[in-house]
Amino acid sequence: MPRVLSASLSAHVGATVTTAGWVHRRRQLKSVTFLILRDAAGLAQVVVTAADLRARLADLPEESVLEVTGRVVGNPAAPAGVELVDPTVRPLGDPAVPPPFDVYRPELTAALPTQLDHAAVALRHPGRAAALRISAALVAGFRAALDRLGFVEVHTPKIVAAATESGANVFALDYFGRPGYLAQSPQFYKQMLVGVLERVYEVGPVFRAEPHDTTRHLAQYTSLDVEFGFVTDHRDVMRLLRDVLAGMLGEVEGRLGEVEGRLGEVEGRHGEVEGRLGRLAGRVTGAGAGRLDLPAPEIPAVHFTEALAIAGAPPDEPDLAPAHERALGDWARAEHGSDFLFVTGYPLAKRPFYTHPATEDTPSGGPARAYSNGFDLLFRGVELVTGGQRLHRYADYLAALAQRGEPVEPYAGYLDAFRHGMPPHGGFAIGLERMVARLLGATNVREVTAFPRDLHRLTP
Amino acid sequence: MPRVLSASLSAHVGATVTTAGWVHRRRQLKSVTFLILRDAAGLAQVVVTAADLRARLADLPEESVLEVTGRVVGNPAAPAGVELVDPTVRPLGDPAVPPPFDVYRPELTAALPTQLDHAAVALRHPGRAAALRISAALVAGFRAALDRLGFVEVHTPKIVAAATESGANVFALDYFGRPGYLAQSPQFYKQMLVGVLERVYEVGPVFRAEPHDTTRHLAQYTSLDVEFGFVTDHRDVMRLLRDVLAGMLGEVEGRLGEVEGRLGEVEGRHGEVEGRLGRLAGRVTGAGAGRLDLPAPEIPAVHFTEALAIAGAPPDEPDLAPAHERALGDWARAEHGSDFLFVTGYPLAKRPFYTHPATEDTPSGGPARAYSNGFDLLFRGVELVTGGQRLHRYADYLAALAQRGEPVEPYAGYLDAFRHGMPPHGGFAIGLERMVARLLGATNVREVTAFPRDLHRLTP
Repeated sequence: MPRVLSASLSAHVGATVTTAGWVHRRRQLKSVTFLILRDAAGLAQVVVTAADLRARLADLPEESVLEVTGRVVGNPAAPAGVELVDPTVRPLGDPAVPPPFDVYRPELTAALPTQLDHAAVALRHPGRAAALRISAALVAGFRAALDRLGFVEVHTPKIVAAATESGANVFALDYFGRPGYLAQSPQFYKQMLVGVLERVYEVGPVFRAEPHDTTRHLAQYTSLDVEFGFVTDHRDVMRLLRDVLAGMLGEVEGRLGEVEGRLGEVEGRHGEVEGRLGRLAGRVTGAGAGRLDLPAPEIPAVHFTEALAIAGAPPDEPDLAPAHERALGDWARAEHGSDFLFVTGYPLAKRPFYTHPATEDTPSGGPARAYSNGFDLLFRGVELVTGGQRLHRYADYLAALAQRGEPVEPYAGYLDAFRHGMPPHGGFAIGLERMVARLLGATNVREVTAFPRDLHRLTP
Repeated sequence: MPRVLSASLSAHVGATVTTAGWVHRRRQLKSVTFLILRDAAGLAQVVVTAADLRARLADLPEESVLEVTGRVVGNPAAPAGVELVDPTVRPLGDPAVPPPFDVYRPELTAALPTQLDHAAVALRHPGRAAALRISAALVAGFRAALDRLGFVEVHTPKIVAAATESGANVFALDYFGRPGYLAQSPQFYKQMLVGVLERVYEVGPVFRAEPHDTTRHLAQYTSLDVEFGFVTDHRDVMRLLRDVLAGMLGEVEGRLGEVEGRLGEVEGRHGEVEGRLGRLAGRVTGAGAGRLDLPAPEIPAVHFTEALAIAGAPPDEPDLAPAHERALGDWARAEHGSDFLFVTGYPLAKRPFYTHPATEDTPSGGPARAYSNGFDLLFRGVELVTGGQRLHRYADYLAALAQRGEPVEPYAGYLDAFRHGMPPHGGFAIGLERMVARLLGATNVREVTAFPRDLHRLTP
């Protein structure tokens, strides 16, 4: 008999069906045991009255895997309005060892390090699993938006001969007897591939040997990278980014109902997670106070020099501090009703060597010289995306490297692209785990990452 | 004026449009210069008669990037039946340094190492770029087939504390002062995530410190990994794999016309590549002698013991040699008219410790004991995919590790999943670059990989 998922049981009222999943919870009352079975689609309630089966279930810990065959009957109080009665139960493995914390509670009560130590079990909590599904939805929306525009997905080397972004925070390894490094970004490769395919994207791991133990840094994260040619300047990149974000949030919205359906149907008490998803739904769909505002067709933008003034910072500050970014987030909401704000024209000295210098003077008429066509996108006052226009002339690369006292030789293969003809181009990179964390309001990026890697953690 | 791509010019006959791209080729005749411009969509012919512009173009090397504005006129001899006349030309950068080899020739004539040293330019050859597009199509088809079946995309750690498949061929690195390793596969993680999401897939890099210099091994390749729960045995995995392959090849077929449109339109002489793509098209679409046969609804399968007999190998051989696989490929074509053949029931001792033992005796009635529910999929006599059913009981893992003399402790986080309840499950992994190489008939996997990594190569 083919297996029926919990969410589909309501289509089988009156029939005898087979379902399977994990024992999410047992509730043993005086004359009946309620068995809550969890599967990929949600939860199903099984009503057990037979004494022998009740006795067997009494000895079967949560998380044991069962196949349950029973008759589907309507019950408005049960998940999706149905439950299984007169069940027969077949174990699909040995009884589970009871987990180190209860997966069925509204929130995982164990400390985060304990959860992460036992990720294989902690991730089964419907709230944790929902974050992984939202992550998948964001990536699917990213790809779909770019595929529609003729972008080609690429896969680039993760072991490189020279550090991409800077010599710091790079993992070194022994590559057949010589030094190799884990790529900190696919930046050089996506640029080279603009010379081949014009429009490329990559979804892949990047590595930062981040020596700080913070709530938002990981040693490995998933970077959503985009690069494309024949732009006029960074504004073309910003317009694309806005449309890609709309596609990502749209895909989350489209899948939210499905994800929510998995949460707390029987127990009805996965409180915080439900609340977060509800707020997210409100944000994406525009309903309620938590509404998420992504202006169309363009996200408001301020020049770096304007941003300093808005944030009340001295005009000679070389960068925006977190407090400045928060102030800008408040300003964007108050002035533009927007949760997103571009800051353009970052000082050139603060951006990587491949950054294109500003092509226009500052809004107050200051010289372009010290600024760049690089931008950040703030989401509610926190940096979410970095991007910009890149240099495309070989001579400009030589000058930029010389300016920074960097040798040319380690970059020879990369610079080949520019020696042999490259169009004006630009791109951006989104950190996936950070975006999920911010959308869900998680305070620590590790809460939404399946198996995080950090200064202290290399397992599981 | 918005840019028009070469493939769209025929929709603008009579109009003056702007196009942009790389100088693919110049042909300077007595009174006219034909400028062939290459962009993401293909090639466009520009007819130049003005003396001053002809003189400027004479000094402009191939691969320089230009914007060309001109009037579109019909010309049956030109690509897509149109060409640009009365052009004005604006350089989008400095003149290119002439490449170390001609990108416009039907085939790259430089030796493969030279091509790879200058990958940023070599990949611009339409044949090389086509391989990247076909790779992207295969991945898109893979995801689409799995998304339809409720699989969730995941991202797992690439730095791990213990080698996945064996201690050999693993890259070691310094992870904040302690030893770490690059993941040889996402095997453990995809299994753990079956306990969370039931059905998962990952597209990501895997790393093998492969000490051999062969035409089919890379130190980094893209692995298409699938794992799912609640299977009866390996046959469920084989059925899924068949449908996923059909989705992948279908997506390639859908995009082939587009890819072919980019090849050799003007020159008409990208001979070998066109031939390969033509054969591939024939294979996928079922036209012509090169027709690719993927039987439906199931790919034929033989047990390992039968495979030995078919290949004329002694019945006590522990594994299939390449010559045996080739013989099996011939047999599958002759007996089943199939380009694909499953070999099931590989000897347990030759498969990783997580492999589920055979659950049935061999076809000749031999005991199941020594065999497994692991399979390989051969494509025209070469291994393309490995997969199988995995162990799902904690006690079985302890026994399998003990049997191989392996300690339990390094696997603690992984084994957690099985201690706390896992369903019967299985999966498979496809090596993307190998699949592209075999589909295109490339003799070296490096020909279809953007920036290959091997024993000798860490750049560009």
